[in-house]
Amino acid sequence: MKQTQDKQQKKAVILLSGGMDSATVLAIAQSQGYQCYALSFNYGQRHNAELIAAKNLVKAFNVQRHEVIQLDLSRFGGSALTDYSIDVPTKASNGIPITYVPARNTVFLSLALAWAETLQAYHIFIGVNAVDYSGYPDCRPEFINAFENMANLATKAGIESKPFRIHTPLLMMGKADIIQQGVKLGIDYHDTVTCYTANTKGEACGQCDACRLRIIGFEQAGIIDQTRYY
Amino acid sequence: MKQTQDKQQKKAVILLSGGMDSATVLAIAQSQGYQCYALSFNYGQRHNAELIAAKNLVKAFNVQRHEVIQLDLSRFGGSALTDYSIDVPTKASNGIPITYVPARNTVFLSLALAWAETLQAYHIFIGVNAVDYSGYPDCRPEFINAFENMANLATKAGIESKPFRIHTPLLMMGKADIIQQGVKLGIDYHDTVTCYTANTKGEACGQCDACRLRIIGFEQAGIIDQTRYY
Repeated sequence: MKQTQDKQQKKAVILLSGGMDSATVLAIAQSQGYQCYALSFNYGQRHNAELIAAKNLVKAFNVQRHEVIQLDLSRFGGSALTDYSIDVPTKASNGIPITYVPARNTVFLSLALAWAETLQAYHIFIGVNAVDYSGYPDCRPEFINAFENMANLATKAGIESKPFRIHTPLLMMGKADIIQQGVKLGIDYHDTVTCYTANTKGEACGQCDACRLRIIGFEQAGIIDQTRYY
Repeated sequence: MKQTQDKQQKKAVILLSGGMDSATVLAIAQSQGYQCYALSFNYGQRHNAELIAAKNLVKAFNVQRHEVIQLDLSRFGGSALTDYSIDVPTKASNGIPITYVPARNTVFLSLALAWAETLQAYHIFIGVNAVDYSGYPDCRPEFINAFENMANLATKAGIESKPFRIHTPLLMMGKADIIQQGVKLGIDYHDTVTCYTANTKGEACGQCDACRLRIIGFEQAGIIDQTRYY
């Protein structure tokens, strides 16, 4: 896609949950020379220890500005992550799991787009992954492409030929590759929270889908994970 | 698009700002037999008198549930509607006006989609209009089509062949036609707030773009508007 700004001026909005994938994306964007604006959400998630992790990552990396948007998706419910009456599964399931939050990435990318347009930042980074993932529909390349297409019809910038690009550097990487790349870029993964039911100290359950993917990833990468389990 | 529910069971999420267009859309959806779930936003807009209007409309029509989401878009700024340091113009401008809120309809539709999926409502109504409108890119049919396509790739329902449909009954109607149809459906437009700088009593300026379109619409429809001006 057409580059409209030179490398020095390039600004990017990074969706930063505080998990290992978005931490890696932040490190990648920075290594590519982008001025990084990090966007996090307090959306009523069980595991909002990840927001403390996000703040630590913002300090560790050279982030221009960090916004934490309050947006109560638990009003809608429908997911084990936002409806506390639904238990987080401790075993892998077939199909799309109950931890799927309806339209979450659509909502997050939409708000990233809103901020990006006011910043005149034409690059949005998101840590979706279609390899070692949980089967969420909004992590697939066809979704990302459709979002990018929609974004360029939705916005003043888009129709004035300053197109937005959605960057997904992890899309086709396995968890072990992600971890190895992140370590090379200086991430201390101890600063990240993965577990869906992490407690307020950021300690993990070791049993949920997200924990399982993390544990296997570190094993395959041959790296010791400092995560503490409760 | 494929109808997956019979008429009795059809649920719809209606984006309800409290303005005349969304009020008309609510009346149309209800006249078509949908169970209506209304969604409004307190997004830091100057004219949040429109939220009082939305509540009055919800009472006047048979709305199943009304959610008002708190979402502070003024954190991002970039529009005369959310950044109080930018004046609302009192004259028509060329191109996209400064009252454009970056990615607003994308954000609102995304949250409507999130709620719709948890409700198992496959119909979303929005009062966009591409005739007597202010030139906003996210009011055009190509944007709506791209959003619908994206929504059906983003969601569990979409990939399970329960597609969402974005309904835009006003898309090709002029303001006068909208008003005439709304009056037939029993809307008291006195319950709606259009003005970008409406005061807390819902009184209008009579000069902004939105007021101008409303005044011309009522004149052309041959109907007296009860709006009070300050």
